[in-house]
Amino acid sequence: MDKVHSDLLSLWFADGTNFAGQDNLRARKTRFEEGLKQVYPHLPIGSRMLVEYKFFEPAFYSTDLPDWGTVYALCLKLGEQAQVLVDLGHHAQGVNIEQIVAFLLDEGRLGGFHFNNRKYADDDLLVGSVNPYELFLIYNELTGAAQSGDQPAASTADNVAYMLDQCHNIEGKIAPIIYSVLNCQEAYAKSLVAPRAQLAACQAAGEVLEAHRLLTDAYRVDVRPLLAQVRIEMDRPADPIAAYRASGYEARIQAERGTANASGGYQ
Amino acid sequence: MDKVHSDLLSLWFADGTNFAGQDNLRARKTRFEEGLKQVYPHLPIGSRMLVEYKFFEPAFYSTDLPDWGTVYALCLKLGEQAQVLVDLGHHAQGVNIEQIVAFLLDEGRLGGFHFNNRKYADDDLLVGSVNPYELFLIYNELTGAAQSGDQPAASTADNVAYMLDQCHNIEGKIAPIIYSVLNCQEAYAKSLVAPRAQLAACQAAGEVLEAHRLLTDAYRVDVRPLLAQVRIEMDRPADPIAAYRASGYEARIQAERGTANASGGYQ
Amino acid sequence: MDKVHSDLLSLWFADGTNFAGQDNLRARKTRFEEGLKQVYPHLPIGSRMLVEYKFFEPAFYSTDLPDWGTVYALCLKLGEQAQVLVDLGHHAQGVNIEQIVAFLLDEGRLGGFHFNNRKYADDDLLVGSVNPYELFLIYNELTGAAQSGDQPAASTADNVAYMLDQCHNIEGKIAPIIYSVLNCQEAYAKSLVAPRAQLAACQAAGEVLEAHRLLTDAYRVDVRPLLAQVRIEMDRPADPIAAYRASGYEARIQAERGTANASGGYQ
Amino acid sequence: MDKVHSDLLSLWFADGTNFAGQDNLRARKTRFEEGLKQVYPHLPIGSRMLVEYKFFEPAFYSTDLPDWGTVYALCLKLGEQAQVLVDLGHHAQGVNIEQIVAFLLDEGRLGGFHFNNRKYADDDLLVGSVNPYELFLIYNELTGAAQSGDQPAASTADNVAYMLDQCHNIEGKIAPIIYSVLNCQEAYAKSLVAPRAQLAACQAAGEVLEAHRLLTDAYRVDVRPLLAQVRIEMDRPADPIAAYRASGYEARIQAERGTANASGGYQ
Repeated sequence: MDKVHSDLLSLWFADGTNFAGQDNLRARKTRFEEGLKQVYPHLPIGSRMLVEYKFFEPAFYSTDLPDWGTVYALCLKLGEQAQVLVDLGHHAQGVNIEQIVAFLLDEGRLGGFHFNNRKYADDDLLVGSVNPYELFLIYNELTGAAQSGDQPAASTADNVAYMLDQCHNIEGKIAPIIYSVLNCQEAYAKSLVAPRAQLAACQAAGEVLEAHRLLTDAYRVDVRPLLAQVRIEMDRPADPIAAYRASGYEARIQAERGTANASGGYQ
Repeated sequence: MDKVHSDLLSLWFADGTNFAGQDNLRARKTRFEEGLKQVYPHLPIGSRMLVEYKFFEPAFYSTDLPDWGTVYALCLKLGEQAQVLVDLGHHAQGVNIEQIVAFLLDEGRLGGFHFNNRKYADDDLLVGSVNPYELFLIYNELTGAAQSGDQPAASTADNVAYMLDQCHNIEGKIAPIIYSVLNCQEAYAKSLVAPRAQLAACQAAGEVLEAHRLLTDAYRVDVRPLLAQVRIEMDRPADPIAAYRASGYEARIQAERGTANASGGYQ
Repeated sequence: MDKVHSDLLSLWFADGTNFAGQDNLRARKTRFEEGLKQVYPHLPIGSRMLVEYKFFEPAFYSTDLPDWGTVYALCLKLGEQAQVLVDLGHHAQGVNIEQIVAFLLDEGRLGGFHFNNRKYADDDLLVGSVNPYELFLIYNELTGAAQSGDQPAASTADNVAYMLDQCHNIEGKIAPIIYSVLNCQEAYAKSLVAPRAQLAACQAAGEVLEAHRLLTDAYRVDVRPLLAQVRIEMDRPADPIAAYRASGYEARIQAERGTANASGGYQ
Repeated sequence: MDKVHSDLLSLWFADGTNFAGQDNLRARKTRFEEGLKQVYPHLPIGSRMLVEYKFFEPAFYSTDLPDWGTVYALCLKLGEQAQVLVDLGHHAQGVNIEQIVAFLLDEGRLGGFHFNNRKYADDDLLVGSVNPYELFLIYNELTGAAQSGDQPAASTADNVAYMLDQCHNIEGKIAPIIYSVLNCQEAYAKSLVAPRAQLAACQAAGEVLEAHRLLTDAYRVDVRPLLAQVRIEMDRPADPIAAYRASGYEARIQAERGTANASGGYQ
């Protein structure tokens, strides 16, 4: 980490078993803890170790780090530099991911995200492409924590490592990455629009419907014009995908490399 | 149906078994078909029988009509007046509901909807409150079919029976119903915004990312101002929930009936 | 099929879309039907076309044939030689697979099985290794249909194509295949032990607990000694896996081919 | 607890929210911790507080204690008398429950079980009636820990509070309770049959298939004759359900109380 000037060690482990009886589950837990306890002390000062959980696959019967609780417990044992990495596709169906985010923020243990989306399995689709409202609700927790001034939630929210962990098969490569960033920017901007003081008042008063409505009204806002304006003020193209396509970059690298069309049909 | 001037017979069956072995699954299927075949011929001309499926509960091991396929097969046996009713909460996790809608539209067998929403089980929450994008995608199929002119999809889309099947426990009663209608209107309006000719061209050209973006850009539009304008032009209140609250109706019935606050805190 | 002397055309289609909007779902349905309608008439007399459904993957947003209902409806359009293939790993979580089997048996449309097992996704584990009771309940439907004499269920049960569709990564190759066959033999033998007349009487009398108990008591029987006896009477080894290991086959092919240990550690 | 001579305080909380925005998730977490921290110091010496988690319902959008990780983290904050209660029906689909059991045993925080079973939702069916193999695998962890001598796993396994949390609707009342106890006894007995030394040797040698087979061979054993023998040696009826039915108790209370048949049809 010193050599490559990195202050984040991001770990995902594929370990687990495929069959009941294949191994002793408690012995595996012990070995896992022992292994990471050997690595942890070598972390440079000021750096963090992010540990990722995954509900299923590539191990088929048991995954050694299957859920946030396992990793959180492990981080408590390791020390304050160990934090949990949340990959949006690594949960059982029906899990409330924003609640996990809220928990980890509150404990100062949210290390970062692997953003992507999925319909059923861990298919690493474009973030926000299957359930954009869920992405907004996740950003809502981040923004709420950052604006709260609470310790350690606010400081945690400022240190979250945002990563895309996606796999683009048929929609091109670079344009979908830009699109993913736009989806995150929109979700983030919408979370900034939420009137937090008013929301807190409704929550305190038990105004269930109005509190829900206030939050979802922020989601309903079309923030694209606002984001375009921000980009212009920052000397960036108002429409990044259009700018990318206009740049001729993709056509050029296709010509150079002889690859097939790489961004979903556009040249 | 003649007596009550109804042309829709909407059926949901709670039947099933709680334990493997409790009953013979094929015998139950036979009895179900025999029963409905006795009822079907009595349908008034021009009326329809809507049959609802449900993935789980109140029967715990097997539900006699657990999925759309079972009901669709039953409808084929009964006749053209029998159609499938889709309750949004009656599917396994991860099911693509809009694809079921597309199938049934295409076959002329989509009878209607029970609108609601759920995070995990069949909890009859406000439609659009958990996954508003899914609601949009369902309306997208309806609008696409209606605008296609295809037979029988277009005519089916015109005859869908829209129902709310919700249960309001803590958020009031009438305001959330109004809110649910607004959610449906927004999803419908967004589906009308989608540029179908351009979308079809992208789809035909295999422009994966752009096709996805065109559709989701329609979803991104904030249609609330448009809907408010439509309401004004129809001599309706621009903000139906505000109008309801201003009407004093809820305060009046609370005073009359001595009930607790019934719409999530507002009088 | 004539050339290779096959009377089964087994089809699984990977087709679908990865993103909402990528394609028109109804148009895809139409194209699928048109394609198979061109193939179907070329089936040799007496042969069958088995069509497989799959809930998710490799397409990530929509799968063209996602469930048994879609394939069943397709088979009805094609003709009596078209039947549904049930892969045990191709369902949403919580689906009652034995009920699908019962339905298809009853309609004469159960073409065959791809046997395997899974904890969450479609991981093609050893059949019976995750939920052996479910495998028993599936065989219970097959045996019940075969013994019923009902038309078409009984004749369907006699014509089911049984296939393993598994992927052995770490447990060897041939020994786990033998083990899978043993698991199927045990589930089948247990289903033959169920006292059907007594079970039917309990079911008819509404003796819920006793009916369940009768069926599960059949499952509780340890049929391994019985199966060993049957094998001996058929001049087969009583313990097929032990016989395979004693044969030296695996050591021989490892030596010949220079491969690593291929059956989970045994030579 | 002193007054009623109880040393177990078993807590399940229905708290949560129905809609995104209804409340502040971190504030709820804080309030929950504060509340339990007030209760905890009042626990009598030697007593335990068992805290239960539940994935969904009765709250529909978020449950304050949705998973084992949340409760485990809470228990760490409270103190050593706080432990996790595992209800078999309170997990997402696909969760590996025996792995949670292994974790909690290893940390000395497995307080007890609410035994039951379910196909999809939390339907409180007879334990072992939907997936008896899963029940065996849970007992396998308990027995493995007890026999290991490991600290704290072995001592934890000795102090687990076993409870049935079931709801009998159509199968009678008392007979199904007896049946549930029998199911637990069978699963426990099978776990005692597993050859742990041999299993550990296979696991250490990476004999994947053989290790799996050794464990499942224990499950395959029909332990009913053994359990009958144990009961006889303990001066108990060999067949408890038959003994209950022969006792006339159910007929007598039906006559006395005028209730309907209460145990699934038998008198």
